[in-house]
Amino acid sequence: MSKKSHIKSKIGKPPGTLLYLGNKAIKDSKVTLTVYDEDIFEVHEINSFNNLKELLSKTKEESVKWINIIGVKDIEFLKLLGEHFKISNLILEDVLNSYQRPKIEINHDFLFVVTKRPYYNNDDYSIEHNSYIMNDRLLISIQDAENDFYKDITERIKNGLNVFRKMKTDYLLYVLLDLSVDNYLLVFEEFQEKSEALEEKLIYEPVKEDLSSIQELKKTVQAIRQSLWPTREILNSLVRRESNFISEGAVVYFRDTLDHQLQLNDTLEASREMVSSLMEIYLSSINNKMNEVMKVLTIIATIFIPLTFIAGLYGMNFEFMPELKWHWGYPLTLLVMFLITLILIIYFKKKDWM
Amino acid sequence: MSKKSHIKSKIGKPPGTLLYLGNKAIKDSKVTLTVYDEDIFEVHEINSFNNLKELLSKTKEESVKWINIIGVKDIEFLKLLGEHFKISNLILEDVLNSYQRPKIEINHDFLFVVTKRPYYNNDDYSIEHNSYIMNDRLLISIQDAENDFYKDITERIKNGLNVFRKMKTDYLLYVLLDLSVDNYLLVFEEFQEKSEALEEKLIYEPVKEDLSSIQELKKTVQAIRQSLWPTREILNSLVRRESNFISEGAVVYFRDTLDHQLQLNDTLEASREMVSSLMEIYLSSINNKMNEVMKVLTIIATIFIPLTFIAGLYGMNFEFMPELKWHWGYPLTLLVMFLITLILIIYFKKKDWM
Amino acid sequence: MSKKSHIKSKIGKPPGTLLYLGNKAIKDSKVTLTVYDEDIFEVHEINSFNNLKELLSKTKEESVKWINIIGVKDIEFLKLLGEHFKISNLILEDVLNSYQRPKIEINHDFLFVVTKRPYYNNDDYSIEHNSYIMNDRLLISIQDAENDFYKDITERIKNGLNVFRKMKTDYLLYVLLDLSVDNYLLVFEEFQEKSEALEEKLIYEPVKEDLSSIQELKKTVQAIRQSLWPTREILNSLVRRESNFISEGAVVYFRDTLDHQLQLNDTLEASREMVSSLMEIYLSSINNKMNEVMKVLTIIATIFIPLTFIAGLYGMNFEFMPELKWHWGYPLTLLVMFLITLILIIYFKKKDWM
Amino acid sequence: MSKKSHIKSKIGKPPGTLLYLGNKAIKDSKVTLTVYDEDIFEVHEINSFNNLKELLSKTKEESVKWINIIGVKDIEFLKLLGEHFKISNLILEDVLNSYQRPKIEINHDFLFVVTKRPYYNNDDYSIEHNSYIMNDRLLISIQDAENDFYKDITERIKNGLNVFRKMKTDYLLYVLLDLSVDNYLLVFEEFQEKSEALEEKLIYEPVKEDLSSIQELKKTVQAIRQSLWPTREILNSLVRRESNFISEGAVVYFRDTLDHQLQLNDTLEASREMVSSLMEIYLSSINNKMNEVMKVLTIIATIFIPLTFIAGLYGMNFEFMPELKWHWGYPLTLLVMFLITLILIIYFKKKDWM
Amino acid sequence: MSKKSHIKSKIGKPPGTLLYLGNKAIKDSKVTLTVYDEDIFEVHEINSFNNLKELLSKTKEESVKWINIIGVKDIEFLKLLGEHFKISNLILEDVLNSYQRPKIEINHDFLFVVTKRPYYNNDDYSIEHNSYIMNDRLLISIQDAENDFYKDITERIKNGLNVFRKMKTDYLLYVLLDLSVDNYLLVFEEFQEKSEALEEKLIYEPVKEDLSSIQELKKTVQAIRQSLWPTREILNSLVRRESNFISEGAVVYFRDTLDHQLQLNDTLEASREMVSSLMEIYLSSINNKMNEVMKVLTIIATIFIPLTFIAGLYGMNFEFMPELKWHWGYPLTLLVMFLITLILIIYFKKKDWM
Repeated sequence: MSKKSHIKSKIGKPPGTLLYLGNKAIKDSKVTLTVYDEDIFEVHEINSFNNLKELLSKTKEESVKWINIIGVKDIEFLKLLGEHFKISNLILEDVLNSYQRPKIEINHDFLFVVTKRPYYNNDDYSIEHNSYIMNDRLLISIQDAENDFYKDITERIKNGLNVFRKMKTDYLLYVLLDLSVDNYLLVFEEFQEKSEALEEKLIYEPVKEDLSSIQELKKTVQAIRQSLWPTREILNSLVRRESNFISEGAVVYFRDTLDHQLQLNDTLEASREMVSSLMEIYLSSINNKMNEVMKVLTIIATIFIPLTFIAGLYGMNFEFMPELKWHWGYPLTLLVMFLITLILIIYFKKKDWM
Repeated sequence: MSKKSHIKSKIGKPPGTLLYLGNKAIKDSKVTLTVYDEDIFEVHEINSFNNLKELLSKTKEESVKWINIIGVKDIEFLKLLGEHFKISNLILEDVLNSYQRPKIEINHDFLFVVTKRPYYNNDDYSIEHNSYIMNDRLLISIQDAENDFYKDITERIKNGLNVFRKMKTDYLLYVLLDLSVDNYLLVFEEFQEKSEALEEKLIYEPVKEDLSSIQELKKTVQAIRQSLWPTREILNSLVRRESNFISEGAVVYFRDTLDHQLQLNDTLEASREMVSSLMEIYLSSINNKMNEVMKVLTIIATIFIPLTFIAGLYGMNFEFMPELKWHWGYPLTLLVMFLITLILIIYFKKKDWM
Repeated sequence: MSKKSHIKSKIGKPPGTLLYLGNKAIKDSKVTLTVYDEDIFEVHEINSFNNLKELLSKTKEESVKWINIIGVKDIEFLKLLGEHFKISNLILEDVLNSYQRPKIEINHDFLFVVTKRPYYNNDDYSIEHNSYIMNDRLLISIQDAENDFYKDITERIKNGLNVFRKMKTDYLLYVLLDLSVDNYLLVFEEFQEKSEALEEKLIYEPVKEDLSSIQELKKTVQAIRQSLWPTREILNSLVRRESNFISEGAVVYFRDTLDHQLQLNDTLEASREMVSSLMEIYLSSINNKMNEVMKVLTIIATIFIPLTFIAGLYGMNFEFMPELKWHWGYPLTLLVMFLITLILIIYFKKKDWM
Repeated sequence: MSKKSHIKSKIGKPPGTLLYLGNKAIKDSKVTLTVYDEDIFEVHEINSFNNLKELLSKTKEESVKWINIIGVKDIEFLKLLGEHFKISNLILEDVLNSYQRPKIEINHDFLFVVTKRPYYNNDDYSIEHNSYIMNDRLLISIQDAENDFYKDITERIKNGLNVFRKMKTDYLLYVLLDLSVDNYLLVFEEFQEKSEALEEKLIYEPVKEDLSSIQELKKTVQAIRQSLWPTREILNSLVRRESNFISEGAVVYFRDTLDHQLQLNDTLEASREMVSSLMEIYLSSINNKMNEVMKVLTIIATIFIPLTFIAGLYGMNFEFMPELKWHWGYPLTLLVMFLITLILIIYFKKKDWM
Repeated sequence: MSKKSHIKSKIGKPPGTLLYLGNKAIKDSKVTLTVYDEDIFEVHEINSFNNLKELLSKTKEESVKWINIIGVKDIEFLKLLGEHFKISNLILEDVLNSYQRPKIEINHDFLFVVTKRPYYNNDDYSIEHNSYIMNDRLLISIQDAENDFYKDITERIKNGLNVFRKMKTDYLLYVLLDLSVDNYLLVFEEFQEKSEALEEKLIYEPVKEDLSSIQELKKTVQAIRQSLWPTREILNSLVRRESNFISEGAVVYFRDTLDHQLQLNDTLEASREMVSSLMEIYLSSINNKMNEVMKVLTIIATIFIPLTFIAGLYGMNFEFMPELKWHWGYPLTLLVMFLITLILIIYFKKKDWM
């Protein structure tokens, strides 16, 4: 379904209508439950909501419970989850809407965060839509993707006896957000490689199709900006501890992530400028090439037109043209032609045209 | 009447003079009264002001009364309405002035909101001027249009037993504003389709007339911006509950709409940038085409000018030109000409000109 | 006197030196005194300061007194006025300096406002310098112009029994400022007409002189901005009632004018963008025209250069050129030439060059 | 000494090292002491620090003492002055550093202000570095120049019995700053004359060297901005009376100067825009000229290439060319040639190329 | 290791993992300990952490201890230092990450500052990463470089009996930061020299490769900005004494440095503008050159094409061409040709094309 038909299908619907909006064809969804505290560490694969409910009922209240949903195919599951934990439908709507911009929403019961994870998928810039719903002991993460991007974190929890397993959901949220923010670094690196390769090409061999490539890069930068900028607001809110679920000890970590975000903003600004100068380079380069074409034409024309004139002169059929009768007429003419050519070549060399 | 004559007709008039200012030739106006609460749901078509007054006198005070005016042909009706509900003439003046920018005005008796609903009317960007005058139990909506854009809402009210019918005019205002804001999404989609189609065309076959198309898009973006930007202020004011007629429970809905508005601002910014790069693309593309023309000229001239010179050389009438007497002179000359052509073609192929 | 010599004549002078600075050759100045309240309405033409003093002494204290000075030729009159009402010389200096930007100055005794009224004077953008000095019961308006722009207001006062004659000088100030702000609307309309006419011309038949026209429009936009922007500050100050002479009842009117001003700012921004794109259009259009010129040249050259070569070929004087002896040599050659021309024309048609 | 070597000589030096940094070759320095109050007015030329000390010891404490130093050649004098009045070395360092941007520094003992006075020196934009160190009764002004720019002020003090001689150093500071700010007006006038002259030239006869002139103007605007902008901060601080040495009565004067400064900022912005459009004009104009060159070439080529072809046709040596034998062959050919020329000329006239 | 692999190696690692990130191949690292107060001044070269610990245990508590680490090869040493002084691993991570943007971090135990020192290394813009960890009596400076940039400071401490040796670590921090900020001045000087040299070149002899040079300068300006801008925040924080380790007496020095930073910001802005106009100059200049090429072609073609036509005319083989028989036919033709040439040359001279 195109974005436009998505929009149309939503307009006029009451708020909180649950529909998946996005262009990812998620074939399957996978849910895991990770339960941990200083003593316990368990990972469960969940295959039904009842299964989850049963497992949750067995865990200690103080343990951190992390429900990680990869792919959001199963809207029913989400609805049941929402009802069970009393999550508002407006929140679930944003979870399912992959066009939703990054945001933070704080209420009495939950802290709700939406972020984007950018990546390059075979040269195409893509964006993953990630949502986090958390309270003191529970964090639900929803990834709009087929593969579990968080799979390495389980290991870190398992081994994180000093910090990770002593802290609550706020540290887990930090780790997940930090991973997402760090991904921008990789994306920017790849973007800059592309951009510099194109720049090089534009200077030395611009073609018509490069205009499309420039526009492509421009749109990528815009897309990065649209997902990166609101992240700052989110991190600021976390650092200011606007939600009760962020402990004082976690602030230093979120501040670190905010720090990375600021650096990313600098990089974004630099990328924007670089891309916007590509068009100027293209135009200059095209005119440069035209200049070269013109020089070739001018050199050829300037050398041969006078020679052709001389040849034409002695091709005239006047009866009285004494030169025609001279024995050395022809060789002399050739000599003159040669000298003219020589002088013009020297002139062009001096003008740096050849 | 042109905009200019409109302006002239207003300058120097005392404030509060009621005149319709706009370019919509509204032939007819239609008024409906919808009365609802948890128990009641009624829709009435109104054909005179007395009819309305009578109907209103029969309703319970606690019911929500929604007067929806489609088309503002009947200024007299508006005047009577204003007198009956004690609406200031300055407000009615803004209702009738379709050049009025979106705004919110809060006083003790009313909350007054002006917004714009953009749409594409057969490829032409158009704007509808919508006004809302509301207090606790009454909402008057005025649409500067022929068709009732709100017709689907009646159904939602009827079925909205859980939320809609339990809430007051603030929720109704939210639904109307949200619809208006969501319309921008559709307009942007159409705009971007147009813009990308033009971009494609500019790269591959730019013509003089495209300059007009670019300017057209630029003006559309400006028009969208002029109507979209002030909307943020309106929504902010509603979210901050600056008017008493906004209940605490409605804030979450207005915040949702504000959220959409922020996303629209991002899209607007992206659209602006895209449009402003179209002119650069056009210029680059024109120069690109010139380059191609120049190459054709240069190739033709560079190949034939030397050949013509040689032909001219042996067209000279000197008496002593030994080559002319040679038996193989002519074929040899042709051979030389052929070789020159060959060399030049290879040269151009290498330079990627052919 | 040029602006430069004006500046020079002022530098180093003590503050408060009264000199008219401006480029309007005011031949005559006219002063009227209008006295009104709920009961009284009188208009007097003033011919000397003593005349004014006498008339003022006869009026009731509670009546509103409006002294309207059209043209500021008579500096002596202004000095006497200043001394009589104890207006600081720094204020009178600003009244006389038509280069003074719009401003508001509030002190214990007076509210002092400077605004600009823009207008088109036979295609030339011009600016009128208007000053208002007012307290509770007195408003002195000074127009840097020959014609009384406020002449219609007298009628409005006369008939304004409901509002105008009940209110004090603040309402009068509002009416005068509103008139001035509304004038920008007319100016923008005329400006946009000019700008669009030029745009059209630039696309279809750009000439060298258009560069001057573009610059002209740019300067007009700058001039409008320089006089329009500070107006916002003035109106904001009035709406916030920073001066005691603004009653609470007048705020709603000034807010209305502020509203118009905000709309004008949007229009200004749009005009700026439009003008700044004119130069790009010009450049694109020039290159477009060059492209057309080049195409004509290329078509002519590409068709005739090969033909001329063939003609040159059979103009060679080799003894052994069997074609020359053929009976059908000449017609065949013509045929070949015709075919070459045909092929090239088809080629150009296909390339859309013809 | 170049700026670079200046910088090098300072880096790594302890703060407060006294060195003159600047590009003015001041040959001589002149010091005057002006002492005034309501009764007294004296001007003394100072030739040594002891002379100054002696004179100061003889003045009444309540008199205003103005030490005006023209040219800062004599660093020793400055040091002695600094020690005598207990002026910090960090302040004196800024007095001597002509690259120091305008600033205000307020401490318990002194108010320290640095401003720039711009002027055109034979077509070259130059800047004078002015410093003011003042307390209640003492004002030391230091001008980085050879000529006393303040010479007219002495006269104003002498005659200023009403205001000048009744007020303290704050009024003197106002007069000096106002003079400096007013100088920008003159500079802008000259700048705009230059800019408009260049604009005219660019439109009608652009040459390569104009690129340098445009850059020159750009740099001048930058230099003006760098010295003008910080002035606003200075005046704001004075108007807010952040220093104790500014009396309430002086605020109205500083506000007046601030007002002028705001107007200058508008002019600066306009100048920036004008200069930045010069490059666009240049580019457009160059392309315009190229267009004209191309037209000449195209007209010549388009007329003569077909004619030359016809001539070449009848220069062919085929045996069977019946036209060659016709009696009217030659005149007819000439006629055809003439008609072709005529048609082409009409065509070019119609295309507005001739 | 490339930056990209650096990033990859960090993503997903727990915070506080110590790894050197940077492109400096530091071969060796050197550590010095400087201990000073009013009476004592000692400099020690440190070769092991135990050595350092021993030396520190011998110093008086009140002395300032400055540990200067040049090159950060020895991560082990840094770890031990961190453990000994209880410096958080998050701080040490930033010390080792040379991509970290300048920042200030204030906690109870330490003031942590990161800055950049820019320099030109054989025409290449380079950046050094400097970190400062300080409390009341201890300052650890870490330079990401091979050479000790602070070597001259030791001398200043030694001789600084009046100020330096009386003050604590805050003054030392000021001296180090000031040195770093002053370095930007030198870098800007060199940058502007390069930029102006390129500008000159672009105007008179632009070549394709200059596009790369322009981009190079653009990137340098971006890099300078990214390291310079955050410095302001750092200095502001120090001036506001947000850390307890900054004494009131040191504020005046940091304010001085802040002052320099503001001036650098002006210079940065000017540099940005200059660089961004280089591309416009390039484009204008390229078109200028094309114009010249076109003129040469047009002059040659316009002169010789008519002559060649005349020659072709009399090369026709019509039997009846009376001119061919005339005795003065040939000389007359030559004369006509000469006159045409003359007229065209005069025409071109007048058009200023020759």
